[in-house]
Order: sequence, then structure tokens, then C-alpha cells
Amino acid sequence: MNLKTRTLQWDGTCLRLLDQRKLPEKEEYFICRNDSDVAVGIRDMIVRGAPAIGASAAFGYYLGTKRLMMDEKLKGHELIEKMNDVKKEIGSTRPTAVNLFWALERMEKIFIKNVDNPCLLGLLEKEAYDISADDIRINKTMGKYGAELLNDGDCVLTHCNAGALATVDYGTALGVIRAAIESGKKIRVFADETRPYLQGARLTAWELMKDKIDVTVITDNMAGWVMKLGKINAVIVGADRIAANGDVANKIGTYMVAVLARKHNIPFYVAAPVSTIDIKTKCGSEIPIEERSHDEVRFCGGREITPAGVKIFNPAFDVTDNDLISAIITERGILRQPYSESIGKLFID
Amino acid sequence: MNLKTRTLQWDGTCLRLLDQRKLPEKEEYFICRNDSDVAVGIRDMIVRGAPAIGASAAFGYYLGTKRLMMDEKLKGHELIEKMNDVKKEIGSTRPTAVNLFWALERMEKIFIKNVDNPCLLGLLEKEAYDISADDIRINKTMGKYGAELLNDGDCVLTHCNAGALATVDYGTALGVIRAAIESGKKIRVFADETRPYLQGARLTAWELMKDKIDVTVITDNMAGWVMKLGKINAVIVGADRIAANGDVANKIGTYMVAVLARKHNIPFYVAAPVSTIDIKTKCGSEIPIEERSHDEVRFCGGREITPAGVKIFNPAFDVTDNDLISAIITERGILRQPYSESIGKLFID
Repeated sequence: MNLKTRTLQWDGTCLRLLDQRKLPEKEEYFICRNDSDVAVGIRDMIVRGAPAIGASAAFGYYLGTKRLMMDEKLKGHELIEKMNDVKKEIGSTRPTAVNLFWALERMEKIFIKNVDNPCLLGLLEKEAYDISADDIRINKTMGKYGAELLNDGDCVLTHCNAGALATVDYGTALGVIRAAIESGKKIRVFADETRPYLQGARLTAWELMKDKIDVTVITDNMAGWVMKLGKINAVIVGADRIAANGDVANKIGTYMVAVLARKHNIPFYVAAPVSTIDIKTKCGSEIPIEERSHDEVRFCGGREITPAGVKIFNPAFDVTDNDLISAIITERGILRQPYSESIGKLFID
Repeated sequence: MNLKTRTLQWDGTCLRLLDQRKLPEKEEYFICRNDSDVAVGIRDMIVRGAPAIGASAAFGYYLGTKRLMMDEKLKGHELIEKMNDVKKEIGSTRPTAVNLFWALERMEKIFIKNVDNPCLLGLLEKEAYDISADDIRINKTMGKYGAELLNDGDCVLTHCNAGALATVDYGTALGVIRAAIESGKKIRVFADETRPYLQGARLTAWELMKDKIDVTVITDNMAGWVMKLGKINAVIVGADRIAANGDVANKIGTYMVAVLARKHNIPFYVAAPVSTIDIKTKCGSEIPIEERSHDEVRFCGGREITPAGVKIFNPAFDVTDNDLISAIITERGILRQPYSESIGKLFID
């Protein structure tokens, strides 16, 4: 089973992750030969973006099972016990993106059901592969729905990177932009640089330029001003977790952009697969917000920019209230207010 | 005539500017021996901040007159003509901050009136010195008025650096914070890092830490989230130019902070000397907004962070509408809405 996208590559034995810390300077791959390598890849943000984290975690789960079965010769109860640790280790890497837990649970279901099945490893590999392949299909479907919301000639502001690099391929927010362009519309993009990790300046700019999509980078504090200058027709962002009431956790700064969009009567769209919706989380205040290393703020471009010892606050995500969101674009259609209803309907089968 | 502050030093022969590009890493001074050196100092942002630019420009004007009189032996009409060029050169360095033009005009008035006076150089030196000494006094008076607006225990968000380093000393926005602390109130500060030039992370953090004032650095896109978390009681910023109707041009991102403050019912204050008010500019849309080199956005910490050739937009300032401003703190008191009236009164003598 082989998979080869910009973000990740699977050749049946190891997972190669495009090292997103090094973009746009270098295109290097980080090789994960076991589950610990995958945990490092997610924790250190070598791979990032909720759907890409989910797919990577799935392959990590497979690699963990393989290690325990082949190297440590475990089976039955011992295997089940140790796989709990594997799930815990991978699950502890990033607390906010729900796709991580969603993917691990999908894998665990197959594992538990087939723990004595001689085809266990094959079934797990197939599940990880399916999660990845599905992600691309889902993004393309989402793109088609979302493209309807954009007009020919629109200029779209996006924050962080919700593109091919945040998913297995194609992207959520940038997938909508790609689909609109593929449908013949002319779309330009403004990308917030997205401090501290600079996903906008480094990753969104990189992948849009590769696809010859017109992109302009601004610093995060320019978002309000470009809206005031009338340069922006719509905002589209991704999501790391969507609560049952439609509150959205996403990269720090998303909330600010949503408030600014509302002030300027610009539609604010969230594009995310249904797997990003966490129906067990009632509202945004229940979503855990990861605080990352202060060095991410202290350092920029490899150099310390703040005076030694200064206090730092570095929340990696924020929560945007559902009332600021014009629509949530999913692979099952476009959700509108009231979100508790439109989201609720998706989970009644 | 000697003057020695953190920002600038005058010893009667040359102007030494603290090289703010190198802070907080190194404390080095850039020596201006003539008017061209001062123009470089302002253009390259070795010195920045509207009041500090004004004071530096005044010394630059003096150094220009001295060069033409002593080195080029000019006088009378020839001197007047060449001094026009000096004024133009220094005035062309930064288009937005009005204190630059205000200071040059104050100097020119003395020059024109005394062009045949044998004490011309002495009078010009005294005028530049007065502009600088006045600035410190003005900031302290402004601080006293502004301190009344802050409560014991408040946490204040500030954007960019409107501190000692943006003025001759003490600061405008940070002067208000200093005065509140000197009056016995406990005040903590959140500083937006202020990309692209990082005045908040580098300069505000540096000078507040030197004065042992409690400061926490955040990236610009965290401003909305810290407000939502209830961490901020007031916002205070400086200004580069205030129009007759109270619209305020200030560092890019100020507009965004003002919109966010309004959304969270947090008072948004502007602290600036009356010299920052440009009564000839009716409203914000008439203020020229400088667009600076794209490399400021492209590079961070000395390293290129964006992919080669990507488009950039880099406006150095934005305009905050007067209706978002709770009060303007000046050395002549606190101005409130309607600003056309409260500002108008200052200019009727």
C-alpha cells in the first residue's frame, strides 16, 4: 500500500513526513520508523494541521502495533495493554486538534475487533490508508461545496495554513480556494503570516505559489487594515476542533480575524471535515487550549528577539464564538446557524 | 548645551542616537555628525517614534545650518536656499509622523527670523534643545493626566513602543503607565510584539524590564484572545498623527486593537503631545500612510521567512476612527468626544 502526497508518504514500512519546520527554505522529509518517531513528528510540529495530524497518528498506531507484535512478540492481553500506552503516547502530543483522538479511536476499534485475527496488521494498515485517502476525497467534496460561496474576482483572507500541508492533500480552507479556481473563478489570497510559527508566511505562501495561486503575505496585525481598505471579500480558515454548538477552536488569531470580519461585514467561513466536530464538547469553553513553549515567541528566524527573561504568553489556539461564523463548510454540505441544529443533524443516523 | 537620555544624546557637536535596530541584543549608539546622518537615522529607523523623530530632526536642522555656514561658508539668500534642501531631505524620511514636520517648521521659523543674526547657530541649538527638553516635561504632564484613567491592579495592553525610546524620554503611552505606577498603583503590561519591526517585543519589553515594570510579551494575533480571557483592563497606545476630527494614525495593528477593545468594552486610550495633532488634516483618510520595504515582512530575526518572490503588503501605519477612541491624553488635559470640538478648543488662543 503506497501513498505519496506533499505532506506525507507511506511505503508500507515507514511514514515520511515533509518537515514543515524547514519550509520554505528546505524540502526535507522526516522518517518515522516507529510509533515514537510519529509522536515526535506531531509534538515538534514537523507535521501539523488537524487532518494531517489525524492521518499521521493512524500510521503511528499501525507502526506501534507492528513493533509490539514483531519486535516484542506480544499478543492477546499483553498486546492490548501495551497498545493503550501507544495510544496514550501519540494522543498526548497535541491536546486541541480533535482529529488526533478521532483517528486513534478509529484505529483502536479495528484493533480491538481483530486483535486475534492473523490479518490484524493488514487491517490496521488499510484503516490508516483509508483515513488518509478519505481525507483527500473529503477535502475535494468540501471544496466543491465551499467554492459556491466565492465569487469570481474575490480576494480571500486566510489565517495559518489550512492547506494541502495541513491535510493529507488539497486542504480545507485552501481546498475551497483551489476548487473555486478549478471551477474557473479568479481568486486572490491574502495570507496572515501567523506568528509565532509563521504557518501563513512559510507554508500557505509556499503551497499557493507552487500552484501558481496569487498570494500576498501580510503580518497578522495588518488583517484589520486590509479589510478596512476594502481589499477582502471573504475570510476562510480551518479548524482544530468544532464544538456541538458551532464554536471553533483554531490557530491563535482566528478569533481576532473573525471579530474584524464582522466589523467590516465580510463573511467568515470555517472549512473542516466532520471529523473535526467533537459532538461531546458542548461549547468552546470546554476545549483545552494548548500553551506551547515560550521560545516560539521569544525566537523568530532563529534569533532571540525579546530581552532575556521577559514573561511570555503563548496559547497556540483560540476559540471563535459561533455567532461570528457565517457558515461551516463540511464534506456533507454547508452548515448555517443555528449550528446546534445543523451540526446535530449530522450525528443522527 | 548637553542632553543625555536613553534615546538620544547631544553634546553640542553631534547627536548620538541609541541604535534601536540592535535592541535588545546590543546597546550601541549611532553618531550623527551632520544633517545627512540624521536623515539616515530617521529613515532607517535607528530612531523612531513620532516625538523622538521630531527632536532628532530639530538637531539635524541645526547640524545642517552649521555645515552650510561653517564648511560651505554660505550666508543670506544662498544659505536660505540650501536650508530648504536640508529641510526637504530630513522631511522626506518618514511621511506619516507629523512631529517631524512640526519640529522642522519650529526650527525654520527661528532660522528665517535670525538668518542675519550672528547668534543664529546658538539660537537654533537652543530651539532643538528646547524641543527635546519640552518633550520630557510634556510626557510627564501627560502621564499625570493619564494616570487618573488607570486603576490600581489594572493590566494594560499596549501596541508598538510609545515609551521612553519613542520620545526623548519617559514616553507617551508608557509615560502614562510610569506615572500611574509612580502614584502608587500596581499596573501590569501586555505588549504586542508588533511585527514587522517588533517594537513591542524588542523595545517596550526592554525599557519596561529596565524599569522593573511587569511586562508580558504576546504576538499581535493574541491581542483579541487575551481580551476575551478577561486579562486586559485598558489599552493605551501612542500616535504618529492625529487629525482635527480625532482620527489617529499609529503603528499598523493599532486599528485592529481598537476594534477588539470595543468588542470587549475595554477603554482604548491614545496618549500623544499636542504637537502630534495636525489641525490642517481634517480626517484620517487625508493622512499619508507610509509603505515600507517588503524585506521588513520577508525577514524576521535576520532570516528570510517567506518563499522567494512572494508578494508582500507592508503599510507601516493604519488609521483608527475617532469613534473607537475612548479618550486622547495630552499635556493639556484629556480630550473626549466630540473630538472636533475638544481638539478645536486647543487651537483657539
